[in-house]
Amino acid sequence: MPQKSLPTMKDVAQEAGVALGTVSKVFNGIPVGDSYRLRVEAAAKKLGYQVNQYARGLRASKTYTVAVILPGVDHPFFAALAQHLCTALTQRDHRMLLYVTASRPDIEQRCVTMVQQNRVDGIIGLTYNSLTVDEDLPFVGIDRSFRADIPCVAADNYGGGRLAAEKLLELGCKHLAFLRTGSASPGETDKRGDGFEAVCRARQVPYETLRRNDGEDGPEVFREFFRARMTDGELDIDGIFCSTDLLAWRVQGILGELGLRVPEDVQIIGFDGIRRFGAEELYCSTIVQPVRKIAETSVDLLLAPDRSKTPALVCLPVSYAPGGTTREEKEAL
Amino acid sequence: MPQKSLPTMKDVAQEAGVALGTVSKVFNGIPVGDSYRLRVEAAAKKLGYQVNQYARGLRASKTYTVAVILPGVDHPFFAALAQHLCTALTQRDHRMLLYVTASRPDIEQRCVTMVQQNRVDGIIGLTYNSLTVDEDLPFVGIDRSFRADIPCVAADNYGGGRLAAEKLLELGCKHLAFLRTGSASPGETDKRGDGFEAVCRARQVPYETLRRNDGEDGPEVFREFFRARMTDGELDIDGIFCSTDLLAWRVQGILGELGLRVPEDVQIIGFDGIRRFGAEELYCSTIVQPVRKIAETSVDLLLAPDRSKTPALVCLPVSYAPGGTTREEKEAL
Repeated sequence: MPQKSLPTMKDVAQEAGVALGTVSKVFNGIPVGDSYRLRVEAAAKKLGYQVNQYARGLRASKTYTVAVILPGVDHPFFAALAQHLCTALTQRDHRMLLYVTASRPDIEQRCVTMVQQNRVDGIIGLTYNSLTVDEDLPFVGIDRSFRADIPCVAADNYGGGRLAAEKLLELGCKHLAFLRTGSASPGETDKRGDGFEAVCRARQVPYETLRRNDGEDGPEVFREFFRARMTDGELDIDGIFCSTDLLAWRVQGILGELGLRVPEDVQIIGFDGIRRFGAEELYCSTIVQPVRKIAETSVDLLLAPDRSKTPALVCLPVSYAPGGTTREEKEAL
Repeated sequence: MPQKSLPTMKDVAQEAGVALGTVSKVFNGIPVGDSYRLRVEAAAKKLGYQVNQYARGLRASKTYTVAVILPGVDHPFFAALAQHLCTALTQRDHRMLLYVTASRPDIEQRCVTMVQQNRVDGIIGLTYNSLTVDEDLPFVGIDRSFRADIPCVAADNYGGGRLAAEKLLELGCKHLAFLRTGSASPGETDKRGDGFEAVCRARQVPYETLRRNDGEDGPEVFREFFRARMTDGELDIDGIFCSTDLLAWRVQGILGELGLRVPEDVQIIGFDGIRRFGAEELYCSTIVQPVRKIAETSVDLLLAPDRSKTPALVCLPVSYAPGGTTREEKEAL
């Protein structure tokens, strides 16, 4: 498919029927008559003109503004991430523009485009799709990178998966399972299962896996998985690692319906470290993500004056926390 | 205490040792040599100069940027509010600068001051303190207003309190209680208890109240309240309205420790409508805040072209949702 060349300021002037100088004034924030401004803006919008040149020209003078693009902040992990990013940016005298995308490719790209039309010092994004981003604009990805020169900051997902397997074995489990739901697009979080399986293989422990993408992860999928592994009301699996705390929460409900007790019959470890109401009890025994460190590292990487040394991937250490769905806690309490 | 007069551009020029025109250029984003720019910026920072005049002069040209000031987004209610504010602003072609304050007066004021130094079209704030805000800058308060001309958007807290009392009575409760924790500074949410008590008085139902501020709301306070009202393991209260879902969650734990069952012995209604993981089950039977409507109304009020008709207070309708801590639900299930 032939690529259409990008519209120029000249194209905008022609489309708007105004002088090139008028277009330049509008894009540079210099007052012109309202009717002129509106015509230029309409023409720029129609042609899909991006005020990139202008933005690039001014980039030398910092804006102290960073755009943060997240799927949403209604999920507690993203909420905690937004909170810590905002705090970290404020502590470094920057302000945070927040964009939410519902993980939709069109909205993600629209956000990036909007951000580029405005002046910002950089973007921190937890996005799921390949995006077209100005190469000059600093970008840090969380949990996922879609271009070789965009650094990615994440929890040590692989290490977390290993830790979950080791904990379940330490707690006496003999037959493990890994259950996963999430985005279909590849990312760092996929390594949770890889680390888990690596330990099972090395220790020669029998294990099963069930991986589903968003949209194909209804409760019946997991119910069927368990039913197929039950004999006389007993499950032949006694330790489950779920890819998120939310999945661990749902799995608990499904096991309850099947007459199985957690943690007496089956022990479960989730991933994220989400707390009720943001700061109360954990939902389950879990691998805790270092959310504050992920936020601070992302901000530091983005604002680093020398970007020639930027790493491709930074994985931050996770920890295990008992939260009622494993058996050690009963004794500790 | 004598007030120090605010520094002017002239003071900044003198401090920086540059011409007034250079200062003007820097504040208006017109390129000057880097060394000049740095000197002007350092002088402005040292003197605490606010680029207000500049901001006011340019206010006619919209920035399509709104500052949102919240205590945090780690609490699910604030997270939902941030999410809906961001969506509502994006739908109206505006972008959202997010500031989090941890409810601290100094941080709240610092945020407002920072926002005023930058160009924004207005502020939406859920703040707990009296703040100094430029009168020309549109401001909408959520749950609280600290100046007569600042409109406040909130749930119908009074109506929600009434609804909670009516529901508990409808569910057969004979002896009610209202428990409250929260900020010491007055706001719309105080009306939750007022509405509840009004119904109890009108219906001549016996009721007790316990109101505590943040910091004096430890579990022992509530444990003591219940212990004083227990005889032979039975509580003389059978219906409780808690000012938030979080308090309802904590109270459930305390009642459990005292050997009381919810909802069999005591029914509880909370306030907020918070869901586990943002979108799963409710924590308790509750009065649900219309968070999306609160966000959209705040944005519409802030961006309204004619601000002469702005109301002082807009209360949006709440609803009741059973969530396992009242007795009707058992039958419904």
